[in-house]
Amino acid sequence: MRLRGRKGIRETIERQTDLIVLDPQNWKGRWAERFGNDKPIHVELGMGKGKFISEMSVLHPEWNFIGVDMYDELIRRAGDKARAAAGREDGGAPDNLALALFNIERIEDMFAEGELRRIYLNFSDPWPKKKHARRRLTHPAFLAKYARMLDRYGEIHFKTDSRSLFEFSLNAFADMNIRLRNISLDLHKDGPAPDNVMTEYETKFAGQDMPIHRLEAVIGEDALAEHVDRLKRQGVTS
Amino acid sequence: MRLRGRKGIRETIERQTDLIVLDPQNWKGRWAERFGNDKPIHVELGMGKGKFISEMSVLHPEWNFIGVDMYDELIRRAGDKARAAAGREDGGAPDNLALALFNIERIEDMFAEGELRRIYLNFSDPWPKKKHARRRLTHPAFLAKYARMLDRYGEIHFKTDSRSLFEFSLNAFADMNIRLRNISLDLHKDGPAPDNVMTEYETKFAGQDMPIHRLEAVIGEDALAEHVDRLKRQGVTS
Repeated sequence: MRLRGRKGIRETIERQTDLIVLDPQNWKGRWAERFGNDKPIHVELGMGKGKFISEMSVLHPEWNFIGVDMYDELIRRAGDKARAAAGREDGGAPDNLALALFNIERIEDMFAEGELRRIYLNFSDPWPKKKHARRRLTHPAFLAKYARMLDRYGEIHFKTDSRSLFEFSLNAFADMNIRLRNISLDLHKDGPAPDNVMTEYETKFAGQDMPIHRLEAVIGEDALAEHVDRLKRQGVTS
Repeated sequence: MRLRGRKGIRETIERQTDLIVLDPQNWKGRWAERFGNDKPIHVELGMGKGKFISEMSVLHPEWNFIGVDMYDELIRRAGDKARAAAGREDGGAPDNLALALFNIERIEDMFAEGELRRIYLNFSDPWPKKKHARRRLTHPAFLAKYARMLDRYGEIHFKTDSRSLFEFSLNAFADMNIRLRNISLDLHKDGPAPDNVMTEYETKFAGQDMPIHRLEAVIGEDALAEHVDRLKRQGVTS
């Protein structure tokens, strides 16, 4: 395989102004304007090669999607995947998708308070060394940022093959007093999980004997109220 | 091995009035009276052969302990273990330990509101079939009972080798909006966990490649306030 030079990649992604956003901080608070509508915005932090966000954007035209990653080459590959997923004759990308080149460390520079409906964290880097704990995308410092960026129906959907990251994350959510639901320690135990769009990693691991861990965090106050109402109707809690 | 007849076992346990309680419902609300002091009461629901509760009672003379199980033979074996753990020349049992023959289904008949400081659930039967979910000792219906029996500093400490039971339990605690902490998906990952007293099952599993799952649920309002204060001091939450 011939690798394209760094400069070539940059030119390729710069050309795709319909899909790829190289200055996402300039859209902070104005993403609805960019999409041209007020559909809820779902963001994947660390989209990798973009399989998940591409398929989600095609499956869910009722939502807008933004995939974030910090490497030119990943953005380029995700761009190809998004156009293929759209399946348009003109090679166009899904209207409801943007791919943003950005360092998640400064994610608060990219979104205004309450601008997002949902955040996906899929197979985030586990950063196994304790001294790198603050880099884990479920560190309480990140969770506090996410909580500010999410709206009244805001949720975080998180899945990972890493037992240690999932353990860390369960404690982080608990310490932040964030309500969890649909916690799974082996998502594919009973075959393909309904409505679950798989990432590249997941496709690989699900075929092996690697359990996938998953949870949903209910952040927004209206989302939480609806969740609690549902539990009450089920008689689980009073 | 010659098995003792059922009648022989019953006689053996009936004789041990210093340790074994065959009418625990008659002590409801009066356990402090039975122990002769006001030390906090820790209860293990499903003590099995009694290794955990016996060792805990010797390690922690500052607490009173009650082990509960529903089979005569288990109570008898736990009795032997407790006397051995006490290591007294007169064959006496630890002063701070009682072993109660009782069906946990009706645990609310054994303890009054706020009578307990801590409940241990160790390697409880996972009852894997969905139709038996209500028998799992972390079912929300049980958690509601425990919450009433625990005092202002009340906690539940739960460990299991069963991934499916732990997953069920995480969701049950979350649905009941009970605060969790010190969640572990592989307790013995870094060698023997400090302060962890192992059960018979655990000793076996820890030697193999079976991860032990563990959590602490913070129930009592003063325990919760202390926990939150500690997190604030650590800067985790505001």
